[in-house]
Amino acid sequence: MTLELHGQQIIGGQTFAASGQTFTATNPATGEALPTAFHEGTADEADRALQAADRVFDAFRHSSADQRADLLDAIADEIEALGDQLLERCNAETGLPMGRQQAERGRTVNQARLFATMIRDGSWVDARIDRANPDREPMPKPDIRRMLIGIGPVAVFGASNFPLAISVAGTDTICALGAGCPVVVKAHPGHPGTCELLARAIGKAIEKVGLPADVFSLVHGVGHEIGMALVKHPLTKAVGFTGSLKAGRALFDAAAARPEPIPVYAEMGSANPVFMLPGALAERGEQLAQGLIGSVTLGVGQFCTSPGLVFGLSDETFSKFAFDAAKAAEAAAPATMLHGGIHQSYCDGVKRLSSVDGVKQLGASSDEPGQTQAACVILATDASTFEANAGLNEEVFGPASLLVEAQDASELERIASNLDGHLTATIQGTPDDLREHRQLVSILERKVGRLIFNGFPTGVEVCHAMHHGGPYPATTDSHFTSIGTASIARFARPICYQDFPDDVLPEALRNANGRGSWRLIDGELTKEDA
Amino acid sequence: MTLELHGQQIIGGQTFAASGQTFTATNPATGEALPTAFHEGTADEADRALQAADRVFDAFRHSSADQRADLLDAIADEIEALGDQLLERCNAETGLPMGRQQAERGRTVNQARLFATMIRDGSWVDARIDRANPDREPMPKPDIRRMLIGIGPVAVFGASNFPLAISVAGTDTICALGAGCPVVVKAHPGHPGTCELLARAIGKAIEKVGLPADVFSLVHGVGHEIGMALVKHPLTKAVGFTGSLKAGRALFDAAAARPEPIPVYAEMGSANPVFMLPGALAERGEQLAQGLIGSVTLGVGQFCTSPGLVFGLSDETFSKFAFDAAKAAEAAAPATMLHGGIHQSYCDGVKRLSSVDGVKQLGASSDEPGQTQAACVILATDASTFEANAGLNEEVFGPASLLVEAQDASELERIASNLDGHLTATIQGTPDDLREHRQLVSILERKVGRLIFNGFPTGVEVCHAMHHGGPYPATTDSHFTSIGTASIARFARPICYQDFPDDVLPEALRNANGRGSWRLIDGELTKEDA
Repeated sequence: MTLELHGQQIIGGQTFAASGQTFTATNPATGEALPTAFHEGTADEADRALQAADRVFDAFRHSSADQRADLLDAIADEIEALGDQLLERCNAETGLPMGRQQAERGRTVNQARLFATMIRDGSWVDARIDRANPDREPMPKPDIRRMLIGIGPVAVFGASNFPLAISVAGTDTICALGAGCPVVVKAHPGHPGTCELLARAIGKAIEKVGLPADVFSLVHGVGHEIGMALVKHPLTKAVGFTGSLKAGRALFDAAAARPEPIPVYAEMGSANPVFMLPGALAERGEQLAQGLIGSVTLGVGQFCTSPGLVFGLSDETFSKFAFDAAKAAEAAAPATMLHGGIHQSYCDGVKRLSSVDGVKQLGASSDEPGQTQAACVILATDASTFEANAGLNEEVFGPASLLVEAQDASELERIASNLDGHLTATIQGTPDDLREHRQLVSILERKVGRLIFNGFPTGVEVCHAMHHGGPYPATTDSHFTSIGTASIARFARPICYQDFPDDVLPEALRNANGRGSWRLIDGELTKEDA
Repeated sequence: MTLELHGQQIIGGQTFAASGQTFTATNPATGEALPTAFHEGTADEADRALQAADRVFDAFRHSSADQRADLLDAIADEIEALGDQLLERCNAETGLPMGRQQAERGRTVNQARLFATMIRDGSWVDARIDRANPDREPMPKPDIRRMLIGIGPVAVFGASNFPLAISVAGTDTICALGAGCPVVVKAHPGHPGTCELLARAIGKAIEKVGLPADVFSLVHGVGHEIGMALVKHPLTKAVGFTGSLKAGRALFDAAAARPEPIPVYAEMGSANPVFMLPGALAERGEQLAQGLIGSVTLGVGQFCTSPGLVFGLSDETFSKFAFDAAKAAEAAAPATMLHGGIHQSYCDGVKRLSSVDGVKQLGASSDEPGQTQAACVILATDASTFEANAGLNEEVFGPASLLVEAQDASELERIASNLDGHLTATIQGTPDDLREHRQLVSILERKVGRLIFNGFPTGVEVCHAMHHGGPYPATTDSHFTSIGTASIARFARPICYQDFPDDVLPEALRNANGRGSWRLIDGELTKEDA
């Protein structure tokens, strides 16, 4: 069954369209406006959504873990039930091919189900019980029990580049709901129809499991007003964001300046430096060049983990690698970017890099790019030019990469030491390379959230051990990941109960370990009762 | 052996006194200046300390867990080795009695040893291993391993009110060192001699275990300059602070405005509301009145968890309780506060409360307070006065408490709902009371970090389950505790390794589980090898 889009704010299951202003989505491949006018949300509607979220927060956080897990499973089911309509609309709004959509939908529903499993297991609340000892001298020891609870209503700003996996029903929403936090999503104006479809799937899931509709709302907006209204609203307790440094920092600054500051977990992308070491280049330089271009052009370079900087030592193997990479770039077909704005920024970014004295273009897609299509571009420079031009450090969002040649290991290490924070860094090397450049690993540990050996940074595994984060400016808070199960920690805070009667405690802290979760009792992890 | 104080900055074991400006500590009981002129630190000295910290950060974070645990044990030993000199100087600087000093020293060294045990055990790094599956379809699964590592150089601002347990060698320093973060402490100008003694004990401990002296520095300052220099320094990666809302917020704002924002973990105290329910008052009202005054006057009311607000329902039992509390306050002896400034703020605060129309003083210490001595003061008002005067919500640091009478349960709940964030809330009640006021528990869960039943909030147990934190303005980040073993999370961030050779991984992530720590392998907690 095909759903008719209504283009309105969805607040606790009801629709609102107060502003009288509308916008449409554009097909980036054709430049045509897509059907359905979307109503720009208002500050009043943001307020209504947060009032609704706050009103049901207590009921929601006191819901059983099973019910919240069921919700996440039901969201996965309802997304699947949208069938091809979701993928087709998303393809029309973003230009991302159907195969990619299918894979991303798979990741989105698997992710929701992985969180459901984790919520049902219950160990994520990190329950800790230190039992009383009334006989302790000089003071009796009280009974102290601690666990994580939902922090409160969360505002989510999805990414343009992952319209399914990091948008309305992405990690932020899923883990906030799992933690018991009501969610208000600001729809990305690049794919508002996709957002509406996902929001309606979430609405159906909420209804199916019998939770209050007000635990989820969706608001639209092209401008900054509604987003700022969400971040500044006194009932908002945390913000999840994936997007640009400029937008992320603006939200962070607004949140820090509130009378009650709140955390903004902003994942703001990065240039994901790759270090190509000589042994690896000698062994498999051509394959690495192919691999690099594959990673650079994945999703038209619109991955937060796209490798925008490649460092190597000035020698034959690196020259050969650069040549191969340029050739591979020439063979790469131009492809449609997410929207005209991103495309324009990409073109400007490539121009900015190319115009630096000492930077030359090694190769670019030989086919002429069409409207809003991006050519893959490989540029090259030497370390002294790189070090003299801070702008070369900055991410160009799209399928471009800058190769940087250092004279020796110490220059390579100095460059690494001066890097800003990034989401990832990659080392391509043989075991011998790694032994020789051990110091590089140590330097990079301070710069990034994820270190990759003999792989490429694109492709973020959704798992327990994933850390998709990193020092500023990759994110606003290096403690937290925005992908993987640990991301739930952003939206939960500890609370501790002293000498409470067992039956008044939350389930997770009672003597009987009903859920069979892991708990730290008197310093020992156990699944036993307390 | 008695140490001669030198009153200088201690930077990596060397002493500095560049400013030429000095200050002395004052004995609050006598008003007399104490021996030793302390040299005001300069921004240059702050820079020197952070350069030193940064220089040894890599070596320190790569030190073995055993060596860092040994350091914490050695710090405990060296503090004990200071003997009575520490307690006597501290008593002279703070007016806190010797018995209290002894207990606080016990807490300080036990805390260091508890952290040492945790660091040795190794499970705190939250190691997670998701093993590779090369045969997975459609994409092979990489090997992903994640753990916590130290965040970098940490600036610590100790509290005036716990000169041993929350100062130079307090939780912040101990857990930062345990995590592998070099520490620069800004000495509290109220007890600079105590700070120097503790810093020298830490210096000896560092030497004893063979770590670089630069992992710890101490700088002095009466003004804000040196503190701000530490917070704004680009090499500082996190800040721990315990003190006033005004100072904590100023540091938070400065840190958020940096080009690279860093976290400030500020514990800024609170009024710690107590709810006295009718059943409990009927059963043991007089005992509760005595208990309240005992808690209010503990440490001359200079505990972050001192109960400054007491709510009850307007009935005979609460009137009787108020009468008993006033009587107990009259019997409480005035006592010396930490310093003249705190004493003046206390007197001003009590005046501010008393001057509100509808607030009356019920009772106060009948003995005349001496210079810098505080009288215990019990004030009372009704709920409508309380709700009409936002200022009555604000903490008065010292031995005063305001009793507030509500007309009925719904008024009580409304007041609770409108509370700001606090470190703690306490409910005194019978099981019947609790059943009847179940909603109150739910309301308070959103307001505080720790909920106490039938106890008093003063006295913070140092353990795994402790959460000494809470929603703003109790702290700047409700995710984190500043006391108890979980406090280490503030100074550690995750890093994740993808497809790394086993021998290049940090010890905690290798296949062989050398330390026998708990690790999450493929989603299952285990002490087995990977």
